[in-house]
Amino acid sequence: VPEGLRVVLVAPRNPLNIGAAARAMSNFGFTDMRLVNPYDVAFREARSAVKSHYVLEQAQVFSTVAEAIADCSLVIGGTSVGNRDLHTPLYRLEAAGQLLNNTPAGTSAAILFGSEKFGLSNEDMSHCHWLYRIPAREEHGSMNLGQAVAVTLYELRRKDEAAARRFEESPRAEGAEFERINALLYKLLTDSGYIPERTVEAAEIKLRQLIVRLAIPASDAKTWMGMLRQIQWKIDQQKQS
Amino acid sequence: VPEGLRVVLVAPRNPLNIGAAARAMSNFGFTDMRLVNPYDVAFREARSAVKSHYVLEQAQVFSTVAEAIADCSLVIGGTSVGNRDLHTPLYRLEAAGQLLNNTPAGTSAAILFGSEKFGLSNEDMSHCHWLYRIPAREEHGSMNLGQAVAVTLYELRRKDEAAARRFEESPRAEGAEFERINALLYKLLTDSGYIPERTVEAAEIKLRQLIVRLAIPASDAKTWMGMLRQIQWKIDQQKQS
Repeated sequence: VPEGLRVVLVAPRNPLNIGAAARAMSNFGFTDMRLVNPYDVAFREARSAVKSHYVLEQAQVFSTVAEAIADCSLVIGGTSVGNRDLHTPLYRLEAAGQLLNNTPAGTSAAILFGSEKFGLSNEDMSHCHWLYRIPAREEHGSMNLGQAVAVTLYELRRKDEAAARRFEESPRAEGAEFERINALLYKLLTDSGYIPERTVEAAEIKLRQLIVRLAIPASDAKTWMGMLRQIQWKIDQQKQS
Repeated sequence: VPEGLRVVLVAPRNPLNIGAAARAMSNFGFTDMRLVNPYDVAFREARSAVKSHYVLEQAQVFSTVAEAIADCSLVIGGTSVGNRDLHTPLYRLEAAGQLLNNTPAGTSAAILFGSEKFGLSNEDMSHCHWLYRIPAREEHGSMNLGQAVAVTLYELRRKDEAAARRFEESPRAEGAEFERINALLYKLLTDSGYIPERTVEAAEIKLRQLIVRLAIPASDAKTWMGMLRQIQWKIDQQKQS
């Protein structure tokens, strides 16, 4: 991820979205927020909100995109449609994340987000080296601004290695514990009449398979044995009385 | 992605968040929303909002988590902290996405999201086969509910192949066009006095390198030639007059 990535909101209109964008930046560890020509009331409201983030308090305001990105050597834009006229390359967010994460150290990058209603204008996009699109269903309209910022920044922070780390199951109970549970349950089922006397061997195999499929975690084995022993004790007591 | 994945909001309090969750579901192509014990006013407000989604209109309301997930064979929960007492496995969202996307066909899965203020309770989590965490900075508080839903559903829809598809640059101008641009610019710079007569050869090489580094796209080559020819024409005209 380029250090000091700038998140530039162009003409945002809704204070809640400005606040949500700031919160997402904070969540994912980005601090440089820039607002181009925000709706004044919205910006004031967002800033005076109780939970206003330090991100928002430090946000810089510019009157044009050109000024907001004056110190940036890489400018990209989020869009749901792209712009065919400008021939600007358009990628899915997954590829955009890779591209941004592979920029040379020292690249000062900015991501532009358009206004809630209109997105980025052609002029806004003309500042962009390339554009990206969140793979959402177009027929259902563009994404909410705060959510688009959150999803984009998440992609920049996600780690492929973390996805590769598959389901690590907790260690299973060992064979001996297994057999003890098996024996306890077998006696319980015989004593209670669930297993008829004449099908002993087949029943034993079936029961063992049932228990194997449970995949009892090692840390739970003693608890299960305790429960089974207690039930057995209750049955034994009733027989005696 | 499991077909018909259920998105279960447990005790949501803010109508805007309920609406944002519905919008994110629609954006990423999920329709089965379930609300457990939502704050009544919030649910009514969200439903009567102008842009209420069909997702929200079809949402089912339950009074307990158990009822909401009665038809689900896999239940997972989103959390920023997990629960050490329950020993429920906790994964990063990247791994959670892989796990969910690799469930056998026909798995009826549900994701639980806790309330804005408290997240999932211990009781809520006791229904979960495993938990996941969005890799956000904990010191900055949990994520906004609508954003958490958006980020989670994005992870389920993202494609590794799309990330592998790296920057495809547009085809560059070919050698011949290149040399024409080079020649045009060279003449222009000589005629205008930028290149002194005596350093001809070194200047030619330097200029060619400058142009090579521009990486002129094939589709732009003619435009550049046109511009250079026009400037040359203007200079030639001034010489004649």
